[in-house]
Amino acid sequence: MRHLLSTGDLSRDEATLILDTAEELAQVGDRSVKKLPTLRGRTVVNLFYEDSTRTRTSFELAAKRLSADVINFSAKGSSVSKGESLKDTALTLQAMGADGVVIRHSASGAAHRLANWVDGSVLNAGDGTHEHPTQALLDAFTMRSRLGRLEGLRVAIVGDILHSRVARSNVLLLTTLGAHVTLVAPPTLLPVSVHTWPCEVSYDLDDVLPKSDVVMLLRVQAERMHESFFPSEREYSRRFGLDGERLGRMPQDAIVMHPGPMVRGMEISAEVADSPRCTVTEQVANGVSLRMAVLYLLLGGS
Amino acid sequence: MRHLLSTGDLSRDEATLILDTAEELAQVGDRSVKKLPTLRGRTVVNLFYEDSTRTRTSFELAAKRLSADVINFSAKGSSVSKGESLKDTALTLQAMGADGVVIRHSASGAAHRLANWVDGSVLNAGDGTHEHPTQALLDAFTMRSRLGRLEGLRVAIVGDILHSRVARSNVLLLTTLGAHVTLVAPPTLLPVSVHTWPCEVSYDLDDVLPKSDVVMLLRVQAERMHESFFPSEREYSRRFGLDGERLGRMPQDAIVMHPGPMVRGMEISAEVADSPRCTVTEQVANGVSLRMAVLYLLLGGS
Amino acid sequence: MRHLLSTGDLSRDEATLILDTAEELAQVGDRSVKKLPTLRGRTVVNLFYEDSTRTRTSFELAAKRLSADVINFSAKGSSVSKGESLKDTALTLQAMGADGVVIRHSASGAAHRLANWVDGSVLNAGDGTHEHPTQALLDAFTMRSRLGRLEGLRVAIVGDILHSRVARSNVLLLTTLGAHVTLVAPPTLLPVSVHTWPCEVSYDLDDVLPKSDVVMLLRVQAERMHESFFPSEREYSRRFGLDGERLGRMPQDAIVMHPGPMVRGMEISAEVADSPRCTVTEQVANGVSLRMAVLYLLLGGS
Repeated sequence: MRHLLSTGDLSRDEATLILDTAEELAQVGDRSVKKLPTLRGRTVVNLFYEDSTRTRTSFELAAKRLSADVINFSAKGSSVSKGESLKDTALTLQAMGADGVVIRHSASGAAHRLANWVDGSVLNAGDGTHEHPTQALLDAFTMRSRLGRLEGLRVAIVGDILHSRVARSNVLLLTTLGAHVTLVAPPTLLPVSVHTWPCEVSYDLDDVLPKSDVVMLLRVQAERMHESFFPSEREYSRRFGLDGERLGRMPQDAIVMHPGPMVRGMEISAEVADSPRCTVTEQVANGVSLRMAVLYLLLGGS
Repeated sequence: MRHLLSTGDLSRDEATLILDTAEELAQVGDRSVKKLPTLRGRTVVNLFYEDSTRTRTSFELAAKRLSADVINFSAKGSSVSKGESLKDTALTLQAMGADGVVIRHSASGAAHRLANWVDGSVLNAGDGTHEHPTQALLDAFTMRSRLGRLEGLRVAIVGDILHSRVARSNVLLLTTLGAHVTLVAPPTLLPVSVHTWPCEVSYDLDDVLPKSDVVMLLRVQAERMHESFFPSEREYSRRFGLDGERLGRMPQDAIVMHPGPMVRGMEISAEVADSPRCTVTEQVANGVSLRMAVLYLLLGGS
Repeated sequence: MRHLLSTGDLSRDEATLILDTAEELAQVGDRSVKKLPTLRGRTVVNLFYEDSTRTRTSFELAAKRLSADVINFSAKGSSVSKGESLKDTALTLQAMGADGVVIRHSASGAAHRLANWVDGSVLNAGDGTHEHPTQALLDAFTMRSRLGRLEGLRVAIVGDILHSRVARSNVLLLTTLGAHVTLVAPPTLLPVSVHTWPCEVSYDLDDVLPKSDVVMLLRVQAERMHESFFPSEREYSRRFGLDGERLGRMPQDAIVMHPGPMVRGMEISAEVADSPRCTVTEQVANGVSLRMAVLYLLLGGS
């Protein structure tokens, strides 16, 4: 592995190695061992063309716990606004000696293009509506921690699949790891190509709930719902929102996941969000360990 | 001590311990010893909902001199603008393993609420018009350094008391440490509850000056004066501004303090601002040592 | 040397010492040695009143590779917007213990003024249309690396000389180091004082090209061209843009330089920009080593 661009590029062994490494590194977060010298002297650049404090902070913490130097290179107010192309920015970062570039960009495919131009490792932290591989990996890590396995697991991903890079990365990764995925959404929030994806599709959350070990809710972006001619927020919440009653119809040990930030009252009720079966803060914690594992495996090699 | 939310929570012994520790740590700023390994591997998050480069930089420097990792988590452009609540942000930071969270927020009480949700230490770096405890502590430290004692010291705090978190934190702390505080302001810039504060009140600066060992000027916020129906900037400056003539009527060794940034010509004349009796830059220097002490005592304990 | 404000302040020996030191430090960027402990415990503040992600990042990396702590002090949203003067900001940074201040400011002379107020070292990272000394030094370093010498080298600097701090710093430095500089620009983009500069002036790029070992192109700022009543972007590109045909008329081993970011199709064709004779990314790489050298020489002294 040199880059992490798409979960579709990962073999089952590679994906499992990342999860196993994250499990080991999670102990670094424990009180006794706080910091590893592994990436001392290495430079990780956070190249964020879109704001994302959570993801940027998670990568920054992960890199610092491995003793790397971190440069936050926000595209706002940079040469980008003077007309610099992504290619020139890439060549600049490489010339400065970046060992790893973590990129968040509004254009699908931006991370792939970057990988053509730099010698260092490229880590895709979200490119348009395309992929967000570390999110999918931390989700898989969380499922495995909670439920003990991924093989055979039944996972429902609910909400705005059309605009979700999280959904796509999860479908590809979970399938590779042996889980069964069902996408649950209104037809207007599904991509037209969805029948080519390795998963099932349903329009009826209540039908899927009793057969799911994991229900992963996506954040609803009100403005995008409008674009999709979805009736209303109230209607969305009624049909696809997870409240206490629906939680009760899920299997006893099934869990509720959310990539955050949650819109309480919309896709998830406050009751469910605060339930011990909701893993949203565990996902955040696991995100740091998972990103440490990816940085370690991509940059730490001799 | 687990959090530092209000100077009102500090006993005399606790406050004195902080000042004594800062005095020891001030030597780290000296050329020979530049950095201590005390907080190596610990993470301090600067969670700033309001811009404050000075305070943020002071905490960042303090944390780095103790070898902590520092994450600047600006609320602008973060999930906050996607509707994330303070609680969810708090849970996110805790999940990421923040050992200390330094919070600046426009809402009074924000730091207290945060402390309910996180396991780490919360350091209040200013919450609305409520408190700014490290500012009061560095002020007390500066008085003690310059004048050799706090017990019995006569301190006048002059200006917009109504909107000042600095004033409130100072009144509570200085009283605990045995000093006598007089607030000096026009009635419209005093809170209605001021008669319940453990201090005296005066509307006449010239009457108070000869009886003060310390005159602490607050920054005048012109827009807020307007809200308070204060006549004019000129009128304010005439009645409450400190110029060379007024400085001459203070006791020989009395000092002039200001939390910065100063508005020269408004609350303080350039002559007084540049006088050796004005401690404004000493306060800034002491701020770093004082914040090192607080981080050390809250986070460094075994 | 205590500050680096202008390349005009540097003697030939001092400039050569900086270049030689950069050459040694360039090896730190190599895989084996990644980080030096030289500036451990020292604090470098990036005080940027204008956005410049490239220059700020280059200084940040240079400082971190020498193990210094780096504080990014953006003037936006800081006390500056509350009316704080440059002097008060300077005194604040000094009080906080800044060992070096890297300043970028829109006002010519800002770095010099700052140097009057602080005890630490001031590094001018660009002040108005005045100077940008580390850019000129990294340019000279790149010429020496590529062409083996500076003495007797014929350097053409092409474009908007009027608004360019890069041009001025280069003319002063290159002359000190024994090179011959010719400025090439339309009369409206030359300063009126240009006849007092130690260099030649030409309005005809095609005449100068065959006699140049180095052609340094400056970034064209369209809005400024407008101010200067220059006919049009097309006209500029026709007379002063460097394309493949013009490159062919340069001496065999002559190089093309650009401080970046380039506007492809305007001052430089894509063909020339991507040619191995164009040193733009080398300049970026050399910039980190050069800034390490300057920080080392100014701050590292015992």
